[in-house]
Amino acid sequence: MNAEIIAVGSELLTPYRQDSNSLFLTEKLNQLGVEVAFKTIVGDRRAHIEGAVKLALERADLAICIGGLGPTEDDLTRESAAAALGRGLRRDPALSGELYARFARRRLKMPENNLRQADVIEGAEVLPNANGTAPGLWLECGSAEARQVVVLLPGPPNELMPMFEDHCMERLRALVPPLFIATRVLKVALVPESQLDAQAAPIYSKAKKVETTILAAQGEVQLHLRARADSQAVAEKLVEDLADKLEDELEDAVYSRTGESLEQIAGYYLQMRGATIAVAESCTGGLVAERLTRVSGSSRYFRGGVVAYADDLKSAFLDVPQKILDAHGAVSREVAVALAEGIRKRAGSTLGVGITGIAGPTGGSSEKPVGLVFHALADGRKTEVLERTFPGDRDKVRWQASQQALDMVRRKLM
Amino acid sequence: MNAEIIAVGSELLTPYRQDSNSLFLTEKLNQLGVEVAFKTIVGDRRAHIEGAVKLALERADLAICIGGLGPTEDDLTRESAAAALGRGLRRDPALSGELYARFARRRLKMPENNLRQADVIEGAEVLPNANGTAPGLWLECGSAEARQVVVLLPGPPNELMPMFEDHCMERLRALVPPLFIATRVLKVALVPESQLDAQAAPIYSKAKKVETTILAAQGEVQLHLRARADSQAVAEKLVEDLADKLEDELEDAVYSRTGESLEQIAGYYLQMRGATIAVAESCTGGLVAERLTRVSGSSRYFRGGVVAYADDLKSAFLDVPQKILDAHGAVSREVAVALAEGIRKRAGSTLGVGITGIAGPTGGSSEKPVGLVFHALADGRKTEVLERTFPGDRDKVRWQASQQALDMVRRKLM
Repeated sequence: MNAEIIAVGSELLTPYRQDSNSLFLTEKLNQLGVEVAFKTIVGDRRAHIEGAVKLALERADLAICIGGLGPTEDDLTRESAAAALGRGLRRDPALSGELYARFARRRLKMPENNLRQADVIEGAEVLPNANGTAPGLWLECGSAEARQVVVLLPGPPNELMPMFEDHCMERLRALVPPLFIATRVLKVALVPESQLDAQAAPIYSKAKKVETTILAAQGEVQLHLRARADSQAVAEKLVEDLADKLEDELEDAVYSRTGESLEQIAGYYLQMRGATIAVAESCTGGLVAERLTRVSGSSRYFRGGVVAYADDLKSAFLDVPQKILDAHGAVSREVAVALAEGIRKRAGSTLGVGITGIAGPTGGSSEKPVGLVFHALADGRKTEVLERTFPGDRDKVRWQASQQALDMVRRKLM
Repeated sequence: MNAEIIAVGSELLTPYRQDSNSLFLTEKLNQLGVEVAFKTIVGDRRAHIEGAVKLALERADLAICIGGLGPTEDDLTRESAAAALGRGLRRDPALSGELYARFARRRLKMPENNLRQADVIEGAEVLPNANGTAPGLWLECGSAEARQVVVLLPGPPNELMPMFEDHCMERLRALVPPLFIATRVLKVALVPESQLDAQAAPIYSKAKKVETTILAAQGEVQLHLRARADSQAVAEKLVEDLADKLEDELEDAVYSRTGESLEQIAGYYLQMRGATIAVAESCTGGLVAERLTRVSGSSRYFRGGVVAYADDLKSAFLDVPQKILDAHGAVSREVAVALAEGIRKRAGSTLGVGITGIAGPTGGSSEKPVGLVFHALADGRKTEVLERTFPGDRDKVRWQASQQALDMVRRKLM
């Protein structure tokens, strides 16, 4: 079975908004073994929506329309899909009653327009909306041998997602041959994509039954593994075996297998070791602290941080000796070490991180170019330092520096 | 003239990747007065690409295909578009020569496959690629009265963007009636969309010649104004007049008119007033410092910050008295004030910001629910405090708290 996703809404044809529901739907459909073959985006125009649904029924088995089910004049998906299918609309008394009741509960008079949400295409099943007023619709057409399905879903993600999971997944599962899918995502920080692929390709290319996709994200590379089989156990074993082989080859470069972020992994290790951490940042401006504290429960291991942007605050808050700043400059191996050791001592943490560098776009020199960052990790015995020169703009340099610092913490504790 | 954008690439039909080039192209096309009527996403399959181009020529004046122009077997856009148009491909000797020369300069032997990039559809003009090997193609078809255009562009944004700006904009301008467009984006932090619209709608709905779109983003609402006219001056006056009226009505709620972020605006005011700032954060975990330092040149006014996550560090780094922590709890008006005053004094800055709250999802109580945040701003004379209870998850609460703190700084200095 293959699918076409039709996102409806004039705002999706502006420079400001993009359909993102299709990513969620694609993930769910792929889990069922359904491929998405086409995506179409049309505005709130009846002829365009009707044409898109007709076309989808010519080239796909499943057409999912997103949006245009609300109460306003711009919401045209119901009537357009009905026209494409050559079916009529009837007002559903139960749905009308629910709408009246919903407004009555809030002591509001319902504008007449709202009743359009009670219109149901002939032969359609109503999909309840747990988080809004517009119900979805499920329609089957075609013959028993060539069954086709049209689904209409509301646009807001908090309405669409539960509706699809609760009311469409089971219906679709009944229509497609049973198939079980297992996935893993191996994440590697700060290794260039080409280098990782050179190491990984000889391994994954031998695993014929697992589909492998390499994606480069900011400051990391992800290996997406996916296997399909007749049972979940077989699918899991396929991806697990390949993930094991890849981890053997890539050694400790792989920081996560099941989607965790680097700050989550660093947090796991800190908690597992009963360790605490504090960070002293200059060029990253608080990004490492911000990432560590994105994780709920991080107060168990994160004590705090100092963003010592001005040089005198490096001394005042972190005891970086003025003579080190004078002798080596703020962006130096020595200052990174002093920052890491200073924050560790002042915050009373097991580990201290120090970061200093030149995020750019200005402030670089031939000796200390934009992108140069020193990362230090102190544990009270010895302090490691890593010097890196990152490519890219200010945002990218800062992000990669935060990746490097979090990866040092991970490697220290693993 | 209306357009269809066709993004080609099987990766765009996975849950992991999304076409974003179409947002850039839509913005540029809108500037010319060209509306995007359809967007289609197809995989790397010849029949699908060919069908999409044929369909686009049935329903649009301009078809822009993105991607699939590279050297690999998966790159099928050239031959598919040629088939859709019923035209042949010929190998261009000048382009072949350039490809050989490019590889020779790097002392590499060119794989034969690369020559596919020298294939040109009959009647097409070649669009040079300043940042890659795959040239674009420009084709005109149809009659003089009903001119249609097909453009093939490479997928990487750093190749597509300059190619479109340098080689397509002028060609398109020659085909569409002259039209000048002016835009403004009024940004307002932390006002609910419905409240803003209630205030703004009576004003913008009277300005018939300006198209107004309201978009709610994280912790802010944006009013996008756009006017078209026969001259740039007239278009600019239309949006400027409406922006003035809206600002009068919304008073100091509008923080930016021309796209700046809230941290940029806070930075402008700090620099303009010759003021400096330092921040003491608890629940935001460094986000306010991180946002302030995203701005290049922020070292001129940002002195530094402390992320005092553990309570004892609130005392150690910021002199928050233990008895205040004991009496009121870490999440309290009093502690926010002490944080703001403490960081201001310790960092020697003009202004000090203090933030403490409950980002969730755990840690809330009936008295102090998840989402409760106290924001304080100290200037050495008096310290303002704002208490807010933000909706949403951990990320959203933290983001809104950072918006609130930056907006307090802006309002203080404006």
